[in-house]
Parts: sequence; C-alpha cells; structure tokens
Amino acid sequence: MLIRFAGLGLGAASFTTIFAASSNNANVVDPSYDASKFMAEPVTPRSTLIKDKDDMKVKMELFIMKIQAEFCRALENEEDPSKKFFVDRWTRSEGGGGVTCVIQDGKTFEKAGVNVSVVHGVLPVDAVRQMKARGKDLVGKELPFFAAGISSVIHPSNPHVPTIHFNYRYFEVTQENGEKMWWFGGGTDLTPYYLVEEDVRHFHSTLKKACDTHDRGYYQKFKKWCDDYFLVNHRNERRGVGGIFFDDFDGKSSEDCFEFVKSCAESVIPSYVPLVNKHRNDPYTNAERDWQLLRRGRYVEFNLVYDRGTKFGLYTPGARIESILMSLPVYAKWEYMHSPPDGTPEAKLTEILKNPKEWI
Amino acid sequence: MLIRFAGLGLGAASFTTIFAASSNNANVVDPSYDASKFMAEPVTPRSTLIKDKDDMKVKMELFIMKIQAEFCRALENEEDPSKKFFVDRWTRSEGGGGVTCVIQDGKTFEKAGVNVSVVHGVLPVDAVRQMKARGKDLVGKELPFFAAGISSVIHPSNPHVPTIHFNYRYFEVTQENGEKMWWFGGGTDLTPYYLVEEDVRHFHSTLKKACDTHDRGYYQKFKKWCDDYFLVNHRNERRGVGGIFFDDFDGKSSEDCFEFVKSCAESVIPSYVPLVNKHRNDPYTNAERDWQLLRRGRYVEFNLVYDRGTKFGLYTPGARIESILMSLPVYAKWEYMHSPPDGTPEAKLTEILKNPKEWI
Repeated sequence: MLIRFAGLGLGAASFTTIFAASSNNANVVDPSYDASKFMAEPVTPRSTLIKDKDDMKVKMELFIMKIQAEFCRALENEEDPSKKFFVDRWTRSEGGGGVTCVIQDGKTFEKAGVNVSVVHGVLPVDAVRQMKARGKDLVGKELPFFAAGISSVIHPSNPHVPTIHFNYRYFEVTQENGEKMWWFGGGTDLTPYYLVEEDVRHFHSTLKKACDTHDRGYYQKFKKWCDDYFLVNHRNERRGVGGIFFDDFDGKSSEDCFEFVKSCAESVIPSYVPLVNKHRNDPYTNAERDWQLLRRGRYVEFNLVYDRGTKFGLYTPGARIESILMSLPVYAKWEYMHSPPDGTPEAKLTEILKNPKEWI
Repeated sequence: MLIRFAGLGLGAASFTTIFAASSNNANVVDPSYDASKFMAEPVTPRSTLIKDKDDMKVKMELFIMKIQAEFCRALENEEDPSKKFFVDRWTRSEGGGGVTCVIQDGKTFEKAGVNVSVVHGVLPVDAVRQMKARGKDLVGKELPFFAAGISSVIHPSNPHVPTIHFNYRYFEVTQENGEKMWWFGGGTDLTPYYLVEEDVRHFHSTLKKACDTHDRGYYQKFKKWCDDYFLVNHRNERRGVGGIFFDDFDGKSSEDCFEFVKSCAESVIPSYVPLVNKHRNDPYTNAERDWQLLRRGRYVEFNLVYDRGTKFGLYTPGARIESILMSLPVYAKWEYMHSPPDGTPEAKLTEILKNPKEWI
C-alpha cells in the first residue's frame, strides 16, 4: 500500500516522497528501534532492519537516523517556531536512498542541512578511492560497496554564530579477490566568522571529552588530522578552527569503532548548540555580514575543490546532487584581492586560519 | 630605477605594482609595439620584446596586451564614466608575471576581469597535463614550459545582460627527450540568464564569421567542442549557450595558428559588447536578480569542479590565485532543490542548457 507520510509525530515536518510500506508492518511492535522519533522512515525496509538487527550496517543506519532527528530538533529549538525542517526521503535507483532535512531562509539558520544516506551497489574504483584516505590500496575495477553516513552543514544567518559541519560514516567494500573491508570515518569542525576564543575552547573541549573516553591519544591525533584536511591549499589557510577528523578507522573490532563514532556524533549537540543559543541574537553590521559572505566563498572553494566527500558524491553514479551540494551556503561572495586591515577582528581570524593553534 | 606607473594615458586606471624599468629604455623609440595603448607595461622586458620580436612568445604577448586594452576600453564605454578598470601588474617569483584588470561593483559590471599572464619555468607534469586536452601524452616529471594567455570573465549587474568568458593561450613545453612542443588553445562562450534568441544568433554568427575566414569546418567543430567542454556534468547541463572552444591547436604552422587565434580574439568585442549596450538598462525584478545569482552558483560549480584552466592555475606553484579566481562572481547563490516552474523564461533557458542547439 502506498502511504504518504504526513508526519511521524513531527508536527510541521513534511514528507514529500511517497514510498511503499505495508500497513501490516506498520503495526508490528518493534523492539529494536522506535521510528516515530526519526525524521522519516529509515531507508532499509523495516523487515530487514529487524531481521538483521545485529549487523553493523543496520546498527549504523538506525544510529544515524536517531542522531539526525536529535540534531534537527535541537536546531528547531533555536529557530522561529514557524520554521521547521523540510524532510525529503529519496531513493537511489542503483540501490539505497536517504533522508535529507533542510531549513532554508530561517531566522536563525540561513541554511541548515542534515542528510542521512544509506547506499549500496557497485562503484567505479575511482569513486571508491575518494571514500578512503588510503584509497590507492584498493584493487579492482568495480567494487560492491555499502555506505551509511550522516552529513550536516549549518550556515547560520548571524555572522556571530559559527558554521558547523559534521559527518560520520561507515563503509563496506568487497575487493575483487573477495576480501571484505570495513571502516568508519568522520569528524566535526567549526567555522567561525568572528573568533570568540572561549567558544572555540568549549567546542574543542567537548570533542576532546568524547575522544578521551575511548583513547587518550585520539583527540590530539584527530585534531591534527582535521587541521591538515580542511586546508584551502591554494590560499594556504584552513576553512575554520578545526575540530576532529579521522578516516580508515578500523583498528579494533567494529563494535569498539562504532562506540567511538557514537560518542563523537553524540557530542555534536553539546559542542555546538550552546554557541547558537549564545549568539543568534547578537547585533551585527552590514560589514560583518559581508565578511561572513566572503568567508562562505572560501567554504565553497574548499567543498568544490578539495572535499573528498563531495568528490565521492560527484563521482557516484546516481548520486543525489541536491543532497551533496546542500552543504553550500545560500549566499557566497568573492571580492578581488580582499584582505582585512591589520588589527581588525577579521584579520585576527585570518591569522588563526593560517596558523592553527592548540585550544586546550 | 623604480618607477611607479601612475598611468599610461589611461586616466583613472591605477597601477598598484611597483616594478623595475630603466628610464633609458622608456625613451627608446620602439618600432615593434606601442605600449602606451596597453593597460600596463608588458611582462617581458622591453629589450627582449624588441630583440625577439619574431618569436611567437613575443608576438603572442604583445597581441594579448593589445586585446586586453581594447576590450577593457570597450567595456569602460558601457560603464559609468567614474568607474575605470583597476590595473594590477604582478610578477611571479618562479618566472614571468601578468597584468590583471578588474572592475568591481560597477553600474554595468558587477565584476569584470581581464587578465593577461606570461609565465615560464618548470612545471610538475600533473600541472602540465591540465594545460592540454591530450595532456596524457606528455612524458617526464618536471617540464620546462612557457605560457602566455588572456583570460576574461564579465559578470554584468543586469540579469538581462549575459556573462561572457574568453581565453586565448599559447604554450611551449620541452619534454624530457628534448622535444619542444607548442600549441594554442582558446574559446569564447556566452552565459545568458534569460534567453534572447536573436542575441545568441548574433553572438554565434560573429564567431562563425571569424572561424570561416580560416577554415569552413572550424566553427562546427569548435562549437561542438564548446558544448561538450562547458558541461556541469553532475547536473547534466551546460553552463551557457556555448560558443567556440579548441585546444592542442597545432595542425598548421604556428603563424597560421596564430592568425586564427587573432581572428577569434578580435571577434570578442563585436560578438558581445552590442549585447551589453542593448540590455544594460533593461528593467528587472528581484526574482530575476535571484535567478541570476542561482545561475552564478552553477558558474562557480563549473569553474571550481571542472574547468581545466582553473585547475592548471591551482596546480601551478606560485600561481596568482586572485587572478585565477577573478572569474568567480561577486555574489552567488544556492537553493536546495530549486527548479523553475514550467513555461517560465527560467525554464526555457534550463531546457536549452540541457539540450544545446544549433543557432545558425
């Protein structure tokens, strides 16, 4: 039976994609997860989710659906009550699909995108290489793969509220020799337009706390990786004040890795939402808005020229372009030879972007 | 002696870069070229330009300096008289330099950039590969090279005036085995926000006329190459209504090739400036401005993700990033899932971008 999801206890959230579900299944009492709290029905059919509940593919999908809903609600709490996430549930003809949640032109959020995708099929090895820092090791022409990830970029309206990005993902790839590989990747990073050191310390401390419960060496290692990764190479500046970033994460059991990824993803709200709340009503000038737009131009440069996630998307046949490029801001600006005068807050930020520092 | 170029008969044009020139040389009567009509002194020292006047490197440099000045003046004629091109003469520490001319926030031109660069040195083969459609044939790790080119992108304020891009370039590369290769490349293409078929026909006819004086087959061939090249692959749409594009152009003598390139570059003004004059005072709505910004977002996507010229720049050590990214608009916009309603002028343009047609 075709059901148009008018809502799953989400009030104004709208589900624009019609999908098949059995009215019988909808009544099954399901001990393994509670979809009523998600932004939409998960990608994988309910029966498979229940049957394979101990499979990491299923555990990751349900976890990112939960994180998506929690984060969207936390953001809606900071937004005008009339503005709710628009929810797009989509399917990929080559296998899998996703749930894209977007707020555009809100009072607090100029653009907020929180995307879950759960896709599988066969990939050209060039696309697979973009999925993995050590992608060059992969052997074969076309590889069967599974990828489940949550990815989010929040571009607030007020230049005193930083932009955040986070992405947590799980991959399985079967090589030509039959060997199955799995790994996790992810990270959370902050892009302020004006530097408030106390805020950056709060952000980094929250991430460090999440890391420390698993390994006292993780934060340092993944903080450095983040500084190295989010580099706008042609300008020799980072896109923001960093955070944590890791890839090819498969050192321990997949359970252990998953627990670490869970801690990281669960630290997004406490690391970021207090900063939104603190600054969303700060007064600001046209010149400050202008600076925000120029920095968003740099954000676009990073995403389109360097970001491996974006490239993975652009190389994936049947990828949903709108969900990939959801990370781009509503407005961006480029000015020839713009350079903030010495001693200004804009110059202070630029200095930090060129020379990343330790925050804690 | 250090001379600050306060102008070369260019009125309000300002020369911000101080460079070395001999006051004696400045008085030499020079039969081979008249620098007083250029936007700035050429990159190569005057003595070399005179001594090597029959060398294609010199002929190309002087020609693109002339085209730059003619185009800048033709644009200034369409601009508020108080707004002139800002002229930046720069040097590249690895060898060579350029002259970048920019109008920003003009009445007619939101951003107009006309850049000449004349650079030489040694390049990583990955960068050289971006310079050439058949770049994979190149052998060696680091190759001595020379490149002289003019490149321009004009983003008008009024959404009824199209954006134009053109680029004409000459390369010499010496392979590891000592073999010297040379070739020309280039093209001119138009990106309207609203389709006026008569204007597009005028544009294409002017380019065809330039091609036809050299080879009756060129226009068809290079028009198709243009449609194929300026493709935003991930959206399956062209960035505009095309024009001409060619690369690896070395079939005949370098003199013959140069004559063709000259005809192409000289057709830029008659193909484009009449369209600026015709529409620069057209009334327009906020919605039309918005559409222009969304299309400019697509322009950014093409330039940062696909354009070989931009990639060549980003891979070239010591490249002048501001001159490369001068092609980006002042403002660009991205909206999640934007799609113009059927039957609107915006939908009509989109249809043409998805299915390029013959204009003449």
